[in-house]
Parts: sequence; structure tokens; C-alpha cells
Amino acid sequence: LPHDEVYIETTDYRVIGDAIRVLKIRGAPAIGVAAAYSVVLAVHDPKITSLQDLNTEFYAAINFLSQTRPTAVSLFVALDRMRHLYEQVSHNSILGSQFHLLAEARLIQHEDIESCRKIGEYGAALISPKSTILTHCNTGGLATSGIGTAQGIITTAAQEGKIQRVYADETRPLFQGARLTTLELMKENIDVVLITDGTAGMLMQRREIDAVVVGADRVAANGDVANKIGTYQLAVLAERHMIPFYVAAPTATIDFGTKTGKDIPIEERDPAEITHVAGIRIAAEGVSVFAPAFDITPNQLVTGIVTEVGVLKPPYNESIGKLRPQQLRTAEAAS
Amino acid sequence: LPHDEVYIETTDYRVIGDAIRVLKIRGAPAIGVAAAYSVVLAVHDPKITSLQDLNTEFYAAINFLSQTRPTAVSLFVALDRMRHLYEQVSHNSILGSQFHLLAEARLIQHEDIESCRKIGEYGAALISPKSTILTHCNTGGLATSGIGTAQGIITTAAQEGKIQRVYADETRPLFQGARLTTLELMKENIDVVLITDGTAGMLMQRREIDAVVVGADRVAANGDVANKIGTYQLAVLAERHMIPFYVAAPTATIDFGTKTGKDIPIEERDPAEITHVAGIRIAAEGVSVFAPAFDITPNQLVTGIVTEVGVLKPPYNESIGKLRPQQLRTAEAAS
Repeated sequence: LPHDEVYIETTDYRVIGDAIRVLKIRGAPAIGVAAAYSVVLAVHDPKITSLQDLNTEFYAAINFLSQTRPTAVSLFVALDRMRHLYEQVSHNSILGSQFHLLAEARLIQHEDIESCRKIGEYGAALISPKSTILTHCNTGGLATSGIGTAQGIITTAAQEGKIQRVYADETRPLFQGARLTTLELMKENIDVVLITDGTAGMLMQRREIDAVVVGADRVAANGDVANKIGTYQLAVLAERHMIPFYVAAPTATIDFGTKTGKDIPIEERDPAEITHVAGIRIAAEGVSVFAPAFDITPNQLVTGIVTEVGVLKPPYNESIGKLRPQQLRTAEAAS
Repeated sequence: LPHDEVYIETTDYRVIGDAIRVLKIRGAPAIGVAAAYSVVLAVHDPKITSLQDLNTEFYAAINFLSQTRPTAVSLFVALDRMRHLYEQVSHNSILGSQFHLLAEARLIQHEDIESCRKIGEYGAALISPKSTILTHCNTGGLATSGIGTAQGIITTAAQEGKIQRVYADETRPLFQGARLTTLELMKENIDVVLITDGTAGMLMQRREIDAVVVGADRVAANGDVANKIGTYQLAVLAERHMIPFYVAAPTATIDFGTKTGKDIPIEERDPAEITHVAGIRIAAEGVSVFAPAFDITPNQLVTGIVTEVGVLKPPYNESIGKLRPQQLRTAEAAS
């Protein structure tokens, strides 16, 4: 993308795992859904002829998939749900396990679709009429099963006639904004303008931005947000210009076990993603590179976290704390 | 660059003007020097056989060159000096005019070399030992006749053993940081690390940056600074993290006639510079683009402006105001 829309079909979970690692599949929710279906593929391997085989294959897949992306918590939430279910049902039969795991993957997917829809609704309510929105990276249908997280808010607000324009950061190094977000918003006939990541501050200075809306790869229990590199500086700029900064995050992105953003591991990417574009070297030969995939936005800079159960407001320790028992109940109900 | 070092020789001032327009020649001081020599080339056209021809050719060149880049004030300063001189000497002979204009271009070049050296010295005095510096775009030997402006400070501080590391913003859209700054600093054996423009905030958050040093395309009389897009947000980030933000600017970059940054015209670049990299389309087909070349950093965010006559400090209206008569005297002495 954006040149050709290619659909890749596979029955090998390792192919999907590799696709997650190299960001062919990306966006926290999409990663979770893809990981769940990968487990389903793994347990459908025709070589499985005993419960023992099933067990080996299942845990090999969980292990392989959990090593693809360290920061996206929805990956681990999805794999935990699959494991939790498996441990309940695996004593019965191969077919039974396959059946239940497929049902769970479908549930995770449908929850994601529904979650995007609700995030869109709750988020759109925060957007004033005639708003110009700035967004970073890609959080739409190519990053989720549904209408997207941050982009779901934009889409829903646009349907309500509230969106004047969207500025999309190109989002170096992998240009998800340039390649994907602009493509998706144009398909929805939303006025979208592409900018480099260095242009956001100038637009805010000129009072052209009414709200910043971004997604999240992981939210800590105190509301600190890990998201695509470049998000932190947008939040600093938004605060300085008194612009609301909203984070769209399904509750599956909230990691109750991580106290603050400092405890979130930050993945470093291959330097070649920065030194090369489309296979062409653009940086000087032999140069050192620092290539973090994410940064941490401290909760003080976040105006609201839009989830599928409502908008969380500061103090986040409290508003997120209240969610915890609810998520545990959902997990138990699902199992 | 950075792949091949190619030297282009020409005797046609239009070739140089076009090179300025497409940023083959870039960096405010280099533009000024190149424009001055372009005028010299113009008046050496063998078709010139009368003072009338000379006059026509001279003003055609001035006119053509002044339309190449609207923001770089050193372009206009250099062309004004050439015109001022021409108007003093053009009544005499073709040869005399050619001779004086060549001498003036050489003077502009030598002043630039000397100016870089002094900016380097004054600026290095501001840098603490073991400093890690963040810089944006390219301000070195490829942007000036000498050691550079912001980069002259880095080079001089490195010679004094004060530089631990330099982080170089890649500087979208044209990657001057990735292509040029890293190349030049590596040649000087300075530890340089390339980052995307979205990574600067995270490094400041982690307290890894001790000072930000950038160049300037134009400085207004109140100290507002026009520089490469992305500079403004670096200044906002630096202030938030209590990091000094220095602008290296030869006095030729100061535009006493421009009261504030609001009066500086901001050039917009070809959208293809953002949608394509090395001729390859990376953005969705048909997308709208906002592509300003520069932004304005308000004087409140600037810790000091390092010129060849010393470091200007706030209030800039005063410190810059004191320079004005001095620059006028220099201009008179030169003519």
C-alpha cells in the first residue's frame, strides 16, 4: 500500500507472526485479532493427531507469536485469552479445542469491531463542529477489525458533519500516515492533508488544529501512553497551544499490570527502516541510528482516553482503576 | 549526496539560479555566495559588447536570481551588495564592472568563511564539556563557504573536546540531516546518531540532549527566526525540557527591515517532495499536501543568537537594534 491492494492468504501461523514482526500487520487491535486467528491456524495443522501434538503445537504458536512485538499489549491480551480458554478445554478432544479456539478468536474480532464503533461514538461526542483534527500514524480499518480507534472517532465525527479537515502526519519511518491514513480518509471523502512530522507544531502555532486524536499501543495503569514515536512531542505541542489531546484506546490496550510508562518496554526497529526508503539508501553510508518504535506520553498531557466503555478522564489512576474489576469480570465471563 | 560527490561546472548563471531553486545549492550563506558569483558569471557573458548590454544582462540576472528562494535573506543581502556596487562603478567600462563585481563576490565569500569561524568560536564557548547536541537540517560546509553556522559551533566545540555526541534530525522532506549532516560529521570523526524528526522529543524527555543548535534562513528585527520546517517544535520542546536553544546566524541573515516573524514570507515547496522519495511515490495517489519549507520560532524560545560579532541575548529588539548601525557602516565601507 498505497500502490496495490494485495491480499495474502496463508494457513501457516508463522507467516502471520512474521507479518506482525515486519509490520505488514500493524495497529494494536489488528495485531491482537491476527494473533488469535494465528493460534487457530496452528491448532488446525493436519499433522496434529493426538492431544499431545495439539499441546506442543499450541504452546509453540503462543511462544512464537508472543515474541513478535514487545510493546503492543493487545497481542498479549489476545494470546492470554486463547491460552486461558485452551487450558479449560484441552482435556477433551482435538476437534473441541479447535472449535472453542476459533470461537474465541471470532469473539476477539467481534469485540474489536464493536469496540471501534463505541470508541467512535464516545470520541465523536468530544469533537466540536467544524473541527480540524491532527492525527499520527494509522489507526483505521487497516489497524483494527472495525472502523478504527482514533480514526473511528474521525469517521464517526465526519458522519455527524463535524469534521472540516484532517491533517495526517506522514509518520516516519514507515510512513503509515502517508501510505494508509490518507488512503482510508480519502475513501471516506474526508478532506485530508498530508504533512511531514515536523509541520505539526507550525499548524498549531497558526491555530489550525482544534484537536489531536491518536491511538495507543499500550496504556499503563496511571494513564501514561505508549504510542508511535512522535506522539510525545505532539502532546507537548498540544498542551502548549491549549489543544485537547485525545488517546483512543480499547480497554484491551490498557495494561493494569504496568504501573507507569517507565515500565513499558520500547521496541527498537531495524536502522534500515530509517536509512532506506523503498530499498533506496537515503542516509550516509555507515551512520549510527537510534530507531525507537514508540515513545511514552505522560498522563498529564492526555486530555482524555477514549475507550469502548466511555471516556476516561484524569486522575487516570482512579478512572483506570475502576475499569480493572470490570475487565477481570469480562475475562471470567468469556472463559 | 550522500552516494556520489558530483561537482557541476557551469558558466551560465541561470543554471546556478535553478540549482538554488531546487535546493542543489542550499543553506542561507551558500545561497548568498552562489548568487554573488552568479552575477559575476552573468556580466562575463561574451555577448556583452556595450555598457547597454552589460546593464541589461546585469539587471536580468539580479531579477532572475532574486526570484529563486523567497525566504533566505542572505540571497537578497548578497544581490543588494552586488547592485549597490554596480551602480557605483557601471559608468566606467565593462572590464571595470566585471573586475569590481568579482572582487565583491570574493569579499562576500571570504566574509562568509570568516563569519563561520567566528560563529564557531562564540558558539563553542556556550557549550559545556561532555555535551550531547541536537541539530536540525544541514548547516555545514555544504551550506556555507566555511565550516558552517550551527555546524561550525559543533565542529569548533568538538575540537575543544566538548562534544560527546550529536543527534541529527533526518529533516523531512529533503533529508538534509540524513544525507549531509551525518556525512559531514562522520568525516570529522564526531559521534553522530541519525534520528527521525519525531524522535527529538523522546530524547529530551530522557535527558539525553544538553543543547539544541540550529541555523537560520532569516532573523527578524525582534529575534524571531525563520528556519527549516520542524525548528519551531524543537524550540517548544527545548523550552519545556529546560534545554538551551541556540540559533547560529551570520548578521547577513538578520533582516532589519522585517519587524517580526509574521512578516517573513514562508515558501511552500512542491508537494512531490513529500509524496515521493527518490522518485518513488510513498503517499496515496491524489492526496493533498501542505509543504511549507520553513517555520517561525518566536524570540521568546531562543536562548541566544550566535553571530560573527558575538552572541545576541534577549531582549532581541535591543541586541539586534545595536547591530544595525554597525551593519550599515560595514555596507558603506564595502562600497
